[in-house]
Amino acid sequence: MNYMLKDENAIYYECGYSCDNALYLRLGKEAFFITDSRYTIDAQEHVKSAKVVIERDLYAKAAEIIKKAKVKKIVFDPKEWSVHGFELLRSQTKAEFRPEMDFSHKKRIIKSDEELKILGKAARLGSKAFKALAKTFREEGFGKDEFALTHTAKSVLGGFGKYDLSFDPIVAINANAAKPHATPTKRRLKEGDLLLVDAGLKYKRYCSDRTRTVFADKGFAFKTKQSFGRKKIQKVYDTVLRAHDNAIANARSGMKAKEIDALTRDIIEKAGFGKYYVHSTGHGVGLDIHEMPYISSKSEMVIEDGMVFTIEPGIYIPGEFGIRIEDMVAMVDSKAQVL
Amino acid sequence: MNYMLKDENAIYYECGYSCDNALYLRLGKEAFFITDSRYTIDAQEHVKSAKVVIERDLYAKAAEIIKKAKVKKIVFDPKEWSVHGFELLRSQTKAEFRPEMDFSHKKRIIKSDEELKILGKAARLGSKAFKALAKTFREEGFGKDEFALTHTAKSVLGGFGKYDLSFDPIVAINANAAKPHATPTKRRLKEGDLLLVDAGLKYKRYCSDRTRTVFADKGFAFKTKQSFGRKKIQKVYDTVLRAHDNAIANARSGMKAKEIDALTRDIIEKAGFGKYYVHSTGHGVGLDIHEMPYISSKSEMVIEDGMVFTIEPGIYIPGEFGIRIEDMVAMVDSKAQVL
Repeated sequence: MNYMLKDENAIYYECGYSCDNALYLRLGKEAFFITDSRYTIDAQEHVKSAKVVIERDLYAKAAEIIKKAKVKKIVFDPKEWSVHGFELLRSQTKAEFRPEMDFSHKKRIIKSDEELKILGKAARLGSKAFKALAKTFREEGFGKDEFALTHTAKSVLGGFGKYDLSFDPIVAINANAAKPHATPTKRRLKEGDLLLVDAGLKYKRYCSDRTRTVFADKGFAFKTKQSFGRKKIQKVYDTVLRAHDNAIANARSGMKAKEIDALTRDIIEKAGFGKYYVHSTGHGVGLDIHEMPYISSKSEMVIEDGMVFTIEPGIYIPGEFGIRIEDMVAMVDSKAQVL
Repeated sequence: MNYMLKDENAIYYECGYSCDNALYLRLGKEAFFITDSRYTIDAQEHVKSAKVVIERDLYAKAAEIIKKAKVKKIVFDPKEWSVHGFELLRSQTKAEFRPEMDFSHKKRIIKSDEELKILGKAARLGSKAFKALAKTFREEGFGKDEFALTHTAKSVLGGFGKYDLSFDPIVAINANAAKPHATPTKRRLKEGDLLLVDAGLKYKRYCSDRTRTVFADKGFAFKTKQSFGRKKIQKVYDTVLRAHDNAIANARSGMKAKEIDALTRDIIEKAGFGKYYVHSTGHGVGLDIHEMPYISSKSEMVIEDGMVFTIEPGIYIPGEFGIRIEDMVAMVDSKAQVL
């Protein structure tokens, strides 16, 4: 099979190295990693099972290689390629380019044992970072606004320069937590606030992802057991936690993704909060922070051992508050194992 | 004229707002900002001179609007669009899509007075941040590795959560500074090292960009006057500084970009370091950190008042050290004014 890749993580998955200016070609048994001279040394050191080709114009070189190999069909993911880059390649070769959406993501959906180990380590490092972050927030977070708290979350999750982040952390207080993708405001954290933190770090390029919502009193911790001062918040929190725990306890390999989604959604709907649960139960996690499988109410995808995804039910009451509790699980021996 | 935009900064330039899932259509006198429901409130509040359209499938909606307007030709930049998104649009309409490379960048090349003010403020904030960073490095930087120093640079440049960064800062010691795009290593900063810092922050979405190379003794500052212990380094440094100062003093509107490039390159070549000057003199700066005009030895582009770009000559001696000195200038009354 012949295929070509442009996405950094898609390329890394094939050959163990990538950079921000590279093309990867797989033509039958041969593979080529094409990059420019800035990356010569690193590419030659790290690229596995592909020939490293150094060239200023990656597209022209790729076209030349494709022509030389007399390849007839090449698969590509139309989401990965710009019209510009693709047309350059297409116009210089006679091959038929066959679009296949999510080509690399589909290859990556079942994690190997090695990947599971790395993802487990990423999740443990993420969990440790949440502990460290709680300490920092307890000691110096009160009185600071969400911009400053988000900065602190970046620093702590990133191990002060040691790790890349999976994404920009979300740190949201009270009503701002009612937005699933909250951006920082000038609201300052005070004792007794509701505090939602959604953050992750990368270990060996693999992502972690975790959310905790807590009652931010003097001695708070990012645990799933939380006591809020207000009855309504507590009821919502307990509902989300039950949904979260139910999905983790009862997800099985062989189920459809939509059946796992129902494990959280049914509980939230029965409690009367269905219309405030505005997103899916979760998403796959790997080299990308969002990948397959998507645990949505419409997905017919069958869940299998080796898949890794988040369980992150939430209830968002506009203008009031939002609760989300998120963990990563790996399907092992048919069951969901929390990473 | 009809055109469509996908790039976040290109869209922001047209209507004063953007987000990570938006399309912008300009069809004759009408304009449309299409996004999904997560951004309804922000878009309605901030989008100027365009109709806000909320829709889950942006491409289908854009196709519908294009069909309804009976538009015949639409300009787009093939670098901005994925094959996937573009094909979705193309297949649903009968319009002719005319590729025009760098369409938005070309529109943005001459900065307005308002933009010049914002870029000036961004540069001043960047300069202040360098002062603060020098203080932090003097007090607690020695003994730390480039990963930790880069993290500190991010924190200080970002005003601890107040500003976005123009790009990931480069903090490079001694031989690592010989790579124009150095990435961090475990090398630790010690007194007497050569230290290169290339960093910038965003103010109102506009970028700053600045590089200083210094002799990191106890009392160092990010000034252009530097005394290195070693003669060879001093000679290279003084050559780069002369090249930098010469370009700023003698750049004029009406010159070609390659003539401005020659103002730095000639000095470095005459000093015998030509082969170690491996990049262009500079690049335009605005909403994007790299935009037009590019100040390269091949560019025939005529420089005009209102253009903003960097002057950043450098000499990189592999395995030994690298020197780069960079400032942003605006062409005002035919001359280069340092921002």
